[in-house]
Amino acid sequence: VKPPPDPRRGGEDHLIEWLKRRIRRQSGATSIGDDAALLPPGAFAVTVDHQIAGVHFPLDAAPAVVARRLLAVNLSDLAAMGAAPAYAFLALAAPEGFDHRKFFAALLAACARFGVRLAGGDLARSPERLSASLTLLGTQAGARWVERGGARPGHALWAGGTLGESAAGRLVIERSTAKGPPKEAFSSRTLQRAARRAVERHLAPRPQLALGHWLGNQTAGAGMDVSDGLARDLHRLCRASGTGAEVEAAALPFAAGFAPLCTALGADPLTLALSGGEDYVLLFTLPVAVVPPPELGARRIGPITRRRGVSLLRAGIRETLPDVGWDHLTAYT
Amino acid sequence: VKPPPDPRRGGEDHLIEWLKRRIRRQSGATSIGDDAALLPPGAFAVTVDHQIAGVHFPLDAAPAVVARRLLAVNLSDLAAMGAAPAYAFLALAAPEGFDHRKFFAALLAACARFGVRLAGGDLARSPERLSASLTLLGTQAGARWVERGGARPGHALWAGGTLGESAAGRLVIERSTAKGPPKEAFSSRTLQRAARRAVERHLAPRPQLALGHWLGNQTAGAGMDVSDGLARDLHRLCRASGTGAEVEAAALPFAAGFAPLCTALGADPLTLALSGGEDYVLLFTLPVAVVPPPELGARRIGPITRRRGVSLLRAGIRETLPDVGWDHLTAYT
Repeated sequence: VKPPPDPRRGGEDHLIEWLKRRIRRQSGATSIGDDAALLPPGAFAVTVDHQIAGVHFPLDAAPAVVARRLLAVNLSDLAAMGAAPAYAFLALAAPEGFDHRKFFAALLAACARFGVRLAGGDLARSPERLSASLTLLGTQAGARWVERGGARPGHALWAGGTLGESAAGRLVIERSTAKGPPKEAFSSRTLQRAARRAVERHLAPRPQLALGHWLGNQTAGAGMDVSDGLARDLHRLCRASGTGAEVEAAALPFAAGFAPLCTALGADPLTLALSGGEDYVLLFTLPVAVVPPPELGARRIGPITRRRGVSLLRAGIRETLPDVGWDHLTAYT
Repeated sequence: VKPPPDPRRGGEDHLIEWLKRRIRRQSGATSIGDDAALLPPGAFAVTVDHQIAGVHFPLDAAPAVVARRLLAVNLSDLAAMGAAPAYAFLALAAPEGFDHRKFFAALLAACARFGVRLAGGDLARSPERLSASLTLLGTQAGARWVERGGARPGHALWAGGTLGESAAGRLVIERSTAKGPPKEAFSSRTLQRAARRAVERHLAPRPQLALGHWLGNQTAGAGMDVSDGLARDLHRLCRASGTGAEVEAAALPFAAGFAPLCTALGADPLTLALSGGEDYVLLFTLPVAVVPPPELGARRIGPITRRRGVSLLRAGIRETLPDVGWDHLTAYT
């Protein structure tokens, strides 16, 4: 009932043999090729993330860009738990003509950089668009796991890096043509540089594994990663911890050139920072006396409060910060 | 930059809260809601499978049918390793209007039946069609893991159940209208019953966990599950073991009414049994003196040979059985 594979294109088994050779060359062993991968005993943190063309990244993104983003987004979840990445499992559904080898070459190179072994997966054909999900297993990096429920009144709230830049990058991509960002909108070299950096930030987030490892060696504090926007994710952290929080607008870390870039895009920097989403920096809390090493780049953005609810302090005025941001079921795609 | 969630529809967080309540009611605890799930220490077998609407199941399949099939197909991989299922992680991308609650209610009920805890996941919107991937972690069910490379010359080759019926079911579905299978093609009650059973077999495969557990308690033998057709999967088992095999056509187990159903479909029963795919029965080898308990329903289908290559014995004539069947990259979708 099914046509035999076309030998010119090379079927699934050919691709898997190629992949096994590459993995063996990289890590000396492979568990790929059986019905399931066997892992050595250990306690694992497990996370899974889906990336869909046209939803999570531009339809025309190169296979290598997609592969690196898929891994980075997942690694950010492990960083948030204080986990060290160990094993990856890929479910990839790609349309006809997709360059699997470019995708896997980039994925394996990125895996090597972060100490991850691609240990199994599943390949399928997708009629319209690329859909990939990656499951990552990590082991405990520090002395404890870091969880969302660990915030306590009196803790300080910290952001692991700048906010809103990824959302600005998404806006730049939406307004770009095949030739790149519109020149007339980004008149100066400085603006063009900021636009390029924002696109890079959106397409290639940098998981904060060192920061997560450091948090795992502290005795107290909550942690999570900001994927759906600071406002929504902070509400989640507070709900899990049974606390509230106060965000000081003036303390929110912005990337260099972020404010003028927002002006050129006609977007409000504060809105992007609070609810743009896909920042992939850690959001965490620490007892006030504990301060992360400056080279980790974290910024204190307000206190955790006993009073429930999340508020924003702007020019001395306190307003409620609503639970809005990226929602994967109701947001536009 | 993103519209707030529509409260009438209920966003992602609402769905996750609902899901957490159901999981807590079912298993007393939940790890859902943090960036990653923390699992207790252990040695795990890990497998991942993708199911895409219109590729792996009919576009109009009910959410409950999709949920049960997704789990069953994955469980079959764990059964093949001699693993007992423990944890599931879901990445689900569904189009607008998909009934998430029906899907999750069916998935959780099926998880409960097989002793699986849904421990995490990721939800996204998909522009056109449902795409779901499930990662399963299992622990060792018997005294050993069962692997593909364990076949030895002199072993007998066994099939865990009937072959080809699932492919026949796919053909029935392809020729059916909204009202069901065409009445004129299946003239007798017997044929209609066989068609119904074949559709059921295709949509709701039964993972052979008890058989996998039993194999894990034998001292020798290879095992895998037949997902891409006996021919292709037997080639894989032989390659992994460094052996050959001889399949006796007359020994291939057929479901009741399978041959007349194939005649009505204009399909060759042997072709469906050898390369139709998606059988989800175990293919395994055992030393000749070892015979599985009859209630497990396995059938001996030939010997494992020292000579490489896979052949088919039909009416006393030996022919080469080529490495063909379902290929996820080159097959039609």
